[in-house]
Amino acid sequence: MTDIRTELMTLLNENRVRTDADSLGQYGLDWTRFHTPAPSAVVFPRSVDEVAAIVRWANQRKIGLVPSGGRTGLSAGAVATQGEVVVSFDLMRAISDFDPVERTVTIEAGVVTEQLQGFAAEHGLYYPVDFASRGSSQLGGNISTNAGGIKVIRYGLTRDWVMGLTVVTGQGDVLRLNNGLVKNATGYDLRHLFIGAEGTLGFIVGARMRLARQPRNLTVLLLAVPELDGIMSVFRLFNDGMPLTAFEFFSEQALGHVLARGHSQRPFESASPYYVLLEFEAPTDAETELAFSLFEKATEAGWAVDGIVSQSEQQAKDLWRLREDISESITPRRPYKNDISVTVSKAPAFMRELDAILAREYPDFEVVWFGHIGDGNLHINVLKPEDMPIDAFKRECERVSQWVFELVKKFDGSISAEHGVGLLKRDYLGYSRSAEEMAYMRAIKQVFDPNGIINPGKLVP
Amino acid sequence: MTDIRTELMTLLNENRVRTDADSLGQYGLDWTRFHTPAPSAVVFPRSVDEVAAIVRWANQRKIGLVPSGGRTGLSAGAVATQGEVVVSFDLMRAISDFDPVERTVTIEAGVVTEQLQGFAAEHGLYYPVDFASRGSSQLGGNISTNAGGIKVIRYGLTRDWVMGLTVVTGQGDVLRLNNGLVKNATGYDLRHLFIGAEGTLGFIVGARMRLARQPRNLTVLLLAVPELDGIMSVFRLFNDGMPLTAFEFFSEQALGHVLARGHSQRPFESASPYYVLLEFEAPTDAETELAFSLFEKATEAGWAVDGIVSQSEQQAKDLWRLREDISESITPRRPYKNDISVTVSKAPAFMRELDAILAREYPDFEVVWFGHIGDGNLHINVLKPEDMPIDAFKRECERVSQWVFELVKKFDGSISAEHGVGLLKRDYLGYSRSAEEMAYMRAIKQVFDPNGIINPGKLVP
Repeated sequence: MTDIRTELMTLLNENRVRTDADSLGQYGLDWTRFHTPAPSAVVFPRSVDEVAAIVRWANQRKIGLVPSGGRTGLSAGAVATQGEVVVSFDLMRAISDFDPVERTVTIEAGVVTEQLQGFAAEHGLYYPVDFASRGSSQLGGNISTNAGGIKVIRYGLTRDWVMGLTVVTGQGDVLRLNNGLVKNATGYDLRHLFIGAEGTLGFIVGARMRLARQPRNLTVLLLAVPELDGIMSVFRLFNDGMPLTAFEFFSEQALGHVLARGHSQRPFESASPYYVLLEFEAPTDAETELAFSLFEKATEAGWAVDGIVSQSEQQAKDLWRLREDISESITPRRPYKNDISVTVSKAPAFMRELDAILAREYPDFEVVWFGHIGDGNLHINVLKPEDMPIDAFKRECERVSQWVFELVKKFDGSISAEHGVGLLKRDYLGYSRSAEEMAYMRAIKQVFDPNGIINPGKLVP
Repeated sequence: MTDIRTELMTLLNENRVRTDADSLGQYGLDWTRFHTPAPSAVVFPRSVDEVAAIVRWANQRKIGLVPSGGRTGLSAGAVATQGEVVVSFDLMRAISDFDPVERTVTIEAGVVTEQLQGFAAEHGLYYPVDFASRGSSQLGGNISTNAGGIKVIRYGLTRDWVMGLTVVTGQGDVLRLNNGLVKNATGYDLRHLFIGAEGTLGFIVGARMRLARQPRNLTVLLLAVPELDGIMSVFRLFNDGMPLTAFEFFSEQALGHVLARGHSQRPFESASPYYVLLEFEAPTDAETELAFSLFEKATEAGWAVDGIVSQSEQQAKDLWRLREDISESITPRRPYKNDISVTVSKAPAFMRELDAILAREYPDFEVVWFGHIGDGNLHINVLKPEDMPIDAFKRECERVSQWVFELVKKFDGSISAEHGVGLLKRDYLGYSRSAEEMAYMRAIKQVFDPNGIINPGKLVP
């Protein structure tokens, strides 16, 4: 331990190597709460060269390294439980080389999502990958998990905004991938291999990001939907009828947890089993009128029973909070999360079968549903009963997860739509990837990280 | 040879194995004309299983396989010069499982670009990856080269439209990648590794493709631009001012070849050294008026001296032909093509230096410029003097290419923006990819194709 600390201090200076218990506890965990943090040290590099030096050192010493961004991950992709050295990007937060013609900008891995969104806004532009953890999540982590969130239906995933990537591979090589080019047909696009690799092939240390034009007058419509089947009927109606920037749903149970915090008002007089939140650009009144006419069709068909449309930016934000505050409001209940997806057309049948499984297997647990249903993505949160020990709770959830994953497999879906695999879903990967795919993944891991020092144990052990 | 034929006929039936000289000559070449075709046989599988059987056979026999789509490639990525067996996808042209809600559809690798575009149009949708060879190019080839074309500025590249991929790897494994899911964070996205791999990791046999909403009233504006520098000034003006679906440029020299065919009229009374063609959606008169006002600014600034806007779909098509017919009109002159890109902001400085190099090095050759300049992508075509032998011409062009590639490297650009590497650019890859990147590419090739039987010699020999 002392050796490791001393050696790291020759690479970085003293105050950028920490081994105190608080730092180890803090930087050894992400937002999952099922593991005990136990890193050897936390280091804070300031440059690509320093990251490369750390990786070369770790290869000589055969010590594991764990990349650490905002640690908002939900699959234990950034936890350190076995004496690894945590490499934090907290000191790499520069934004530079903004180009207004290309609408591109260079970021270091530690730039926080909200920081990039703010930078874009200052320049009359928009960084559209958005989700509740925007205030803490870092771009390096977003890229490593190919983060999705609430605007995917219109703007795609993080992958779609990465024009170039600087990485340090598990071998310690610095690769500058794609240089911000729009068109570049010169062989395997290693950039896309690193995006979503959960830091298992090397470290993402910087990127060239694309920004979007600013959307015009984003307007929110919230609908009360009485039946599970109605959610997808409403989706088809609106998605065919007008371009949407978001289409989310949540259950009354989920709303209850948000309202219990006391920051928000119940949106309608009566409760409804489900709610749909959709968003669209409304540069003129015509778009809002179109949305109203679609809403009328939805009520005539019985799919929706009530609705409210935002009249101001503030009201739009308030409505969004009903959906976005769900995760935080249930965090004290140590939720066991399933983040699953199917193709959109399969969603209605899938949701019916899933509902039956959850009702059968979790009769005594509280289950909170919400999700990005326009992308076929559901978040199922099982809340821990107050009096149940965490280990017993986790075992029980894992037992039920098998049923859920069998169903996902039957529908050719994904057992992790956007949270990644990490440690939490590692042993279930076979429900979404074939044995052959996993063998190729392990072989690719071997190519970039032959000593297995980068984020060991995660994704492809 | 007879052995190969007999063995292949046990895998496929007789009329789907060809060894006649005409077939070998035809299927052994793409649109490049610098190689002598010499395959052993051409086979026409009808299913994924047949493709897998061919790959397993080739691994046992250690015989090279060359994937063959529409053979419209321009980098000799699909030529067979050393006794390989060509695997043609001409008999795999099914389009199936259209889903109007998701706007997705399943295609076999041999589906022709125009066939998919037509299918989309029949269903009120749009397949936006578009280029002059749309009538022959096949989707399998488009995906293998991550084809770009004329609408990239708005719709991106082929990569952006592939929701799922069925491949047969060089080891003979069938992988079904991503299953059409929008969100799927379950490890390395092998789909993106196969896209743009030029068939060197395995065969793309099918895909799930996404379609777009139909654009509304696409309108073309053609401008006469007197100076090279004016092209990028016009680009900035329009790109900041309104959403564009295309921004192309071409030289008077290029136009001259198109006019010489007699199918088109000169667009303006006087010739101009350069022309810019831009396209936009005009659902109302407002967009066309906006384009006019921007055109006025361009003329006031002296960047443009004349302009014409399409008043009908037919006129838009006619204007497009001035740009799109260039390639075909110069084909008889056996052009040596450089397909290069830089980031858009670097394009003006890059073009000035390039112009100087071409004037200095090719004083006696005719050089035709055009390109997708909104993507930073230039096509430089050097025409063979009638009386020069092809080998001497190629040598001379390769000598000058070194100067061009040095310049590309200086500007962190790409030596192959959208044509791929194939055989033609293979030895120049180091101008755009680092030694480390190339080493990783070779290691990845080794993982998927350990016997080196898939498209041997191309990209990563």
